Amino acid sequence: MKKSLGPGTTIYTHPVLIVGTYCADGKPNIMAASWGGICCSKPPCVAVSMRKATLSYGNIRATGAFTINIPSESQVIAADYAGMASGRDADKFKAAGLNPVRSELVNAPCVSEFPFTLECRLIKEIEIGLHTQFIGEILDMKADEDVLGPEGQPMIEKVRPFVYASGGDGAYFGVGRRLGRAFSAGKELMK
Amino acid sequence: MKKSLGPGTTIYTHPVLIVGTYCADGKPNIMAASWGGICCSKPPCVAVSMRKATLSYGNIRATGAFTINIPSESQVIAADYAGMASGRDADKFKAAGLNPVRSELVNAPCVSEFPFTLECRLIKEIEIGLHTQFIGEILDMKADEDVLGPEGQPMIEKVRPFVYASGGDGAYFGVGRRLGRAFSAGKELMK
Repeated sequence: MKKSLGPGTTIYTHPVLIVGTYCADGKPNIMAASWGGICCSKPPCVAVSMRKATLSYGNIRATGAFTINIPSESQVIAADYAGMASGRDADKFKAAGLNPVRSELVNAPCVSEFPFTLECRLIKEIEIGLHTQFIGEILDMKADEDVLGPEGQPMIEKVRPFVYASGGDGAYFGVGRRLGRAFSAGKELMK
Repeated sequence: MKKSLGPGTTIYTHPVLIVGTYCADGKPNIMAASWGGICCSKPPCVAVSMRKATLSYGNIRATGAFTINIPSESQVIAADYAGMASGRDADKFKAAGLNPVRSELVNAPCVSEFPFTLECRLIKEIEIGLHTQFIGEILDMKADEDVLGPEGQPMIEKVRPFVYASGGDGAYFGVGRRLGRAFSAGKELMK
């Protein structure tokens, strides 16, 4: 018998997505978002939700573009800062010691120091409630060479991303041990 | 200088969401989905995407409801199976040794053995491409008593969820060590 906790937004697991956008004056900005994830395979698309009050909300609507940058465990302080400060008050790239690199595909900045980036063209905007969901087509995935495996694929063991746990006291957790191959471990239950 | 990998659906991290629905004949079904996540805080909403070809797609449209069930590390085989088999060919609850419990709030079954469940009422359906995104309002979160912390909040260390890594060879990974508190670790960069 489970205990009812009421309506809420805890799920396992939340990603930590650092959204890169350009402001109206050309200044690059980042914000941290955990309400998001992949939402379509063809075309490859990612969804990320944000409040209308954020600077990034207006930036995405104005530019029609954003990047999703994945920080590594060692970059948790910069990522958390990106979710606390507003680009209206600070140059968050500079304060976090990060360097913007202009995407060659979309009008948005990538975070040079983070190991994995998605470059996205806005294709849909969904009004839900407090949050608006932006759906971006992923025009390219880019990764640091040193997080790639022998076949050129990004390896989670090398990216070393982390997750946000909204239950408990609100904390970040790394990725742990490998449990099994997908589309394989469950074969023993197939008749 | 990052390497271009082309368009694709890798992101860090993908959740492993087990979606519970009822079929037209009343049979409970589950499917595994990793294209999803929280998408709004007020009302609390979750998004999950699936292909039109799936049984669950039709079930959600017919019932206007679904549950999201989070498996624990020890349940990786059942979860993987839920993503491999089709409810058209098998009773996936039975084959995986799982028991359905009818939600008291929505017309969908919960997975009794999984430690954490969201009960959702369909509020939006977004056509994207190969995948359709369903947005559900979370009417309740339910958790096993033994995954709750001292203040009655679900604790990731006790839920022990796992993630799907789509890069590399496609595998599941547990959650690792705690890295720091959210909305706190980044304070040192605030001026």
